[in-house]
Amino acid sequence: MTATAQGIEAITDRMFPFHSRHLLSAGDLNAVQAADLLDLADQFVALNRQTNKTLDLLKGRTLMNLFFENSTRTQSSFELAGKRLGADVVNMNAKTSSVAKGETLIDTAVTLNAMRPDLLVVRHSSSGAAALLSQKVGCSVINAGDGQHEHPTQALLDALSIRRAFGRVSGLTVAICGDILHSRVARSNVALLNTLGAHVRLVGPPTLMPSAADRWGAEVHHDFRKGIAGAEVVMMLRLQLERMQGALVPSTREYFRFWGLDREKLAFAAPGVRVMHPGPMNRGVEIDSEVADDPEVSLIQNQVEMGVAMRMAVLASLAARLENA
Amino acid sequence: MTATAQGIEAITDRMFPFHSRHLLSAGDLNAVQAADLLDLADQFVALNRQTNKTLDLLKGRTLMNLFFENSTRTQSSFELAGKRLGADVVNMNAKTSSVAKGETLIDTAVTLNAMRPDLLVVRHSSSGAAALLSQKVGCSVINAGDGQHEHPTQALLDALSIRRAFGRVSGLTVAICGDILHSRVARSNVALLNTLGAHVRLVGPPTLMPSAADRWGAEVHHDFRKGIAGAEVVMMLRLQLERMQGALVPSTREYFRFWGLDREKLAFAAPGVRVMHPGPMNRGVEIDSEVADDPEVSLIQNQVEMGVAMRMAVLASLAARLENA
Amino acid sequence: MTATAQGIEAITDRMFPFHSRHLLSAGDLNAVQAADLLDLADQFVALNRQTNKTLDLLKGRTLMNLFFENSTRTQSSFELAGKRLGADVVNMNAKTSSVAKGETLIDTAVTLNAMRPDLLVVRHSSSGAAALLSQKVGCSVINAGDGQHEHPTQALLDALSIRRAFGRVSGLTVAICGDILHSRVARSNVALLNTLGAHVRLVGPPTLMPSAADRWGAEVHHDFRKGIAGAEVVMMLRLQLERMQGALVPSTREYFRFWGLDREKLAFAAPGVRVMHPGPMNRGVEIDSEVADDPEVSLIQNQVEMGVAMRMAVLASLAARLENA
Repeated sequence: MTATAQGIEAITDRMFPFHSRHLLSAGDLNAVQAADLLDLADQFVALNRQTNKTLDLLKGRTLMNLFFENSTRTQSSFELAGKRLGADVVNMNAKTSSVAKGETLIDTAVTLNAMRPDLLVVRHSSSGAAALLSQKVGCSVINAGDGQHEHPTQALLDALSIRRAFGRVSGLTVAICGDILHSRVARSNVALLNTLGAHVRLVGPPTLMPSAADRWGAEVHHDFRKGIAGAEVVMMLRLQLERMQGALVPSTREYFRFWGLDREKLAFAAPGVRVMHPGPMNRGVEIDSEVADDPEVSLIQNQVEMGVAMRMAVLASLAARLENA
Repeated sequence: MTATAQGIEAITDRMFPFHSRHLLSAGDLNAVQAADLLDLADQFVALNRQTNKTLDLLKGRTLMNLFFENSTRTQSSFELAGKRLGADVVNMNAKTSSVAKGETLIDTAVTLNAMRPDLLVVRHSSSGAAALLSQKVGCSVINAGDGQHEHPTQALLDALSIRRAFGRVSGLTVAICGDILHSRVARSNVALLNTLGAHVRLVGPPTLMPSAADRWGAEVHHDFRKGIAGAEVVMMLRLQLERMQGALVPSTREYFRFWGLDREKLAFAAPGVRVMHPGPMNRGVEIDSEVADDPEVSLIQNQVEMGVAMRMAVLASLAARLENA
Repeated sequence: MTATAQGIEAITDRMFPFHSRHLLSAGDLNAVQAADLLDLADQFVALNRQTNKTLDLLKGRTLMNLFFENSTRTQSSFELAGKRLGADVVNMNAKTSSVAKGETLIDTAVTLNAMRPDLLVVRHSSSGAAALLSQKVGCSVINAGDGQHEHPTQALLDALSIRRAFGRVSGLTVAICGDILHSRVARSNVALLNTLGAHVRLVGPPTLMPSAADRWGAEVHHDFRKGIAGAEVVMMLRLQLERMQGALVPSTREYFRFWGLDREKLAFAAPGVRVMHPGPMNRGVEIDSEVADDPEVSLIQNQVEMGVAMRMAVLASLAARLENA
């Protein structure tokens, strides 16, 4: 038996129908469901490192990428995940689409749905957009980011990166740092990390902290060094410069001084700490290049690799459910 | 024999070489040719509703989508049709292409042709663009909309929607309503519906009616209620706001009052009337949401589904002709 | 044995692992390596003229097109080459990507690399960009144009066009004419044509000639008629109007008078001369339509066809090396 054939068997052995027709929120997953997805994704990581990275699990299926916000990495990650599983993939960049002719979000979704896709990946600037769409279509909807609300596959790929680095997620202290207020990555990560038994801290200035953050099930810190003290994982967030309304931050230079991660501040974390960032990074704003590029510390490239594998696991298990529908 | 295998056999049994190398105009089809295409498309509708929606009929073939005007739905529809038939599909959005560097339409077409595509789908803002291209290239050209001239696959998918709703096209009264002047959809539909034996009416204000409309082989009406009186099909057109030159319409509010389709006006049509729209809709301008979203009345989503199947039928039969060339 | 099966055998017989992990510069190829690539490309020309133009040589492999400059023809050529070889192809138009969010070229490359592509095709406006990327990634990098530096697959496809027209490259006189200063096409062609034993001339006004052109291993001419006198091949360059900084050219009309190729000037070349242009052409600026469109003289469409075949040869032999890595 070749290594590749073993890999395929390892994947099909772990395949399972998803528990829901859609993946809208990281909070929809319980600990067993999340662990099953991570186990399956581990197999896709191995597949993606082989010469032949293609399977036929989604052959004959149609995946539509409907992105109302630009995102090279997320859209490419889903596109690649779909193609490597053998699906037909159609990309819709809504900025250059008929939406510009005044069509509503729902009309666009209903139209695409009539083309009989099996899987619809949606990114939109409005919180709740993916959930709204999911009520209007017959296919599976995957939320690839809705406003400041959720980005569940990001939380899953982050959990996969952490689990592969530490062998577990449970019991680890994870400090999520920076612009919590505007971050769907933070919201999804808090939910999933709690489910998986991690201790989560939210660390950021009061102006970038949601008023209800203390009810998210995480410790809230307004001092960076205290916030990451003893943490095994420091997850930096992108400063959403383009989304800021009003002067929440005095200057990027000032921001870096207090909230940017550098070697000096990182020394307060636990020995063996690993640093994460969902990308794209603002170097010198929320993170120093010396930290971001240190292979002993940084999981940032690893997160991208996990992203493709994790999305393959999500797409494959959603499609497996459709088969049994 | 599985349902899928039966479906494939039903398709290959009905496959035929197209009568011409190109599909440029709905008027090029006679009644038998059109009916054969609709019969074939019916099989693709069934295929697209299955889990495995892919065939190998166009394997090894190259389909190029060359769109000089943006159109999410039409481009995606052709892209999906090509991919589900197993073709390699390359999209060319000419707005971001070398055309911006000053290259002519013909140079672009000749260049693409040298890459040896089998099928070239063209949308362009100039009437006659597709016909011009077809004289310069060695591949099959499908007109996906040329200025205010023609959009033959739209007429075919509309005919398919009508035939599936009523069991026939012949003898039905179809009222095409609104901005006839700027509409390639209207031109192609009049031609094909006449060929298929329907009674066609053109209904719209004098400012949006071509001066020669009375020679199209359709009744011309300038009163909306009289125009749709007794019609089995009311086909609303998109108000081409972005194409209007000068003040042909007083205001969209005023337009809706006289020419927008709502329940009150629709009551003048025949019992069991079905409403169509090529999309994207201007809700509240040419059509009221109450009508557009009523599943008992509206065929609008159905038209989108028929679009993919119809284009599969066109691509497959054009490719079958190439094989015998 | 069918013609197609013979074609595949002819291809696999000639397949070889590339001598390097990357293709960055035409100067990296020696005469034997270049001739092997041209021989392989000849087989792909034959394949592309068949009904079934698809092979499985790159099945399971991922090709990423990363274009920081728009180019319909080059990007489509690589996309088609990859798809016809069975690869999964992902296009990244960097103009609409996260690069716009301030990410660096290296971060973009490292991110894409983490998605485990096998082949990365890069076009960038900075000279040296592809070489820089190749040091940061684990996959093969193909330079599809870096600033004013190199465009090696263009030189290869030009050599293929010449060799098929004349049966050889060695001993021919090739005059490269026009805007040498801004042309990566000229740089790559001089290198490869020298390697293959052609006599190369650079012909252009002093303001569009690099100061060190006399050290490129080519004769430098500032008189158009003398420059092309007796040449078997006249290769016109695109006047890079969009790249010109300052007034290097008085007017396009004036430019055409002295440096535009028309029938009168072409008479100074050798009998049986063939004319080339990398496209897109500025008709009436660097070349007259009468010359460009004369099938007895012009190889311009032929170059585009050779482009797809040549890129298939490059991708296939780079992938063959990866297999043995």
